Amino acid sequence: MKYEEFTIEGRNAVLEALRSGRTIDRLYIQDGCKDGPIQTIVREARKRDTILSFVKKERLDQMSETKKHQGVIAQAAAYEYAQVEDMLEAARAKGEDPFLFLLDGIEDPHNLGAIIRTANLAGAHGVIIPRRRAVGLTAVVARTSAGALNYTPVARVTNLSVTIEDLKKQGLWFACADMDGEVMYRCNLKGPLGLVIGNEGEGVGRLVRETCDMTVSIPMKGDIDSLNASVAAGVLAFEAVRQRMGAG
Amino acid sequence: MKYEEFTIEGRNAVLEALRSGRTIDRLYIQDGCKDGPIQTIVREARKRDTILSFVKKERLDQMSETKKHQGVIAQAAAYEYAQVEDMLEAARAKGEDPFLFLLDGIEDPHNLGAIIRTANLAGAHGVIIPRRRAVGLTAVVARTSAGALNYTPVARVTNLSVTIEDLKKQGLWFACADMDGEVMYRCNLKGPLGLVIGNEGEGVGRLVRETCDMTVSIPMKGDIDSLNASVAAGVLAFEAVRQRMGAG
Repeated sequence: MKYEEFTIEGRNAVLEALRSGRTIDRLYIQDGCKDGPIQTIVREARKRDTILSFVKKERLDQMSETKKHQGVIAQAAAYEYAQVEDMLEAARAKGEDPFLFLLDGIEDPHNLGAIIRTANLAGAHGVIIPRRRAVGLTAVVARTSAGALNYTPVARVTNLSVTIEDLKKQGLWFACADMDGEVMYRCNLKGPLGLVIGNEGEGVGRLVRETCDMTVSIPMKGDIDSLNASVAAGVLAFEAVRQRMGAG
Repeated sequence: MKYEEFTIEGRNAVLEALRSGRTIDRLYIQDGCKDGPIQTIVREARKRDTILSFVKKERLDQMSETKKHQGVIAQAAAYEYAQVEDMLEAARAKGEDPFLFLLDGIEDPHNLGAIIRTANLAGAHGVIIPRRRAVGLTAVVARTSAGALNYTPVARVTNLSVTIEDLKKQGLWFACADMDGEVMYRCNLKGPLGLVIGNEGEGVGRLVRETCDMTVSIPMKGDIDSLNASVAAGVLAFEAVRQRMGAG
């Protein structure tokens, strides 16, 4: 397990963190903030004996990494990266086929946050990111994940291709998002699945792509090249959801 | 028509603007930048007799609104908002059923840019935004649209509900994205369609929602409330694409 220092900023993110049972070392609230959402946060924090500090706005501005603290910043004990094995175990415990997201070098924290949020809502069991040349679990990622980071485990691995090879031995199939792939409606996205999404500029790297079982593409009608990475991940993920539901 | 001052920043956005035939008043290139993408931009600019200025990085940093100019900033003559009627005309000219996005108060420029990008690739004929309480076509929006703003018209209207009522008379149906709606696979998203997406925090406003013909929802499996606005728009848009293709 790897631990990192971590602050959680913004009302939704802090409230979700409290409700999910994450250990908060200390909660900073802006002096004089007494509106409903803040009171809910204070109530939830008191239930859990969280240490509260009421501080001036300037102090929060100074602490804030996102510059969007909305009057509340929580200091979490640490952030925990999960192990890939835990994700498979979570799927087994739920009696579901494993459904994982693998992100090949997402660099924009807003995209990573939005993808973790999507993974949560698409019922994925976890998100796997590479250790290098990719953004990690920063405060911006936590905030844009809108609380999903408290539920959806994220693992960091040294080599995505090696991880894919390992998971193939455990029965997973890998679909790589690629503009030149088979249109997604004609791909089988049921069963134990890893969905591989490339980075913003270059897509999925050659080696990782070649390790996958199939390449899937979104049907494109327009004039430009590609969707935003988090939108593409969402569209593909919910095509998998549709197929798994047997809908449409 | 409404005009606004406009700069285009970043390599993809500038190249797309040139290729789409948009009038560039002046193109600023970072001194000493000679890599492939920059040379392509210079070549395209020279083809069009665009005025080129080679300037120091500090100058570009100063001009930059996005702080991600990547060594190139274009000054466009102006930005043009389209009229809703032009979008219907574009659909007619292509012999297609109109397919429009209506955004009820998107505030984050990254989301607006990503949604315009999605609208382009989903084959939509335009995006309609309200004049107030929403982000307009800023440099960040242009950049995150990855060039889509050059192809996909964006109109601003005073009152979304009134626009919806007008368009209903012209045969469009309106589907409002809402968590409490009918699951999207069971909604008919074929034919002349307006897809209404709410803002980041509050979703679609009550009045606008009540003006729509149906509410559609994305099937959610997770622990948190909602997808990122641009991801939700993407998932719904491509469900419409799927139904229009008759796929799946």
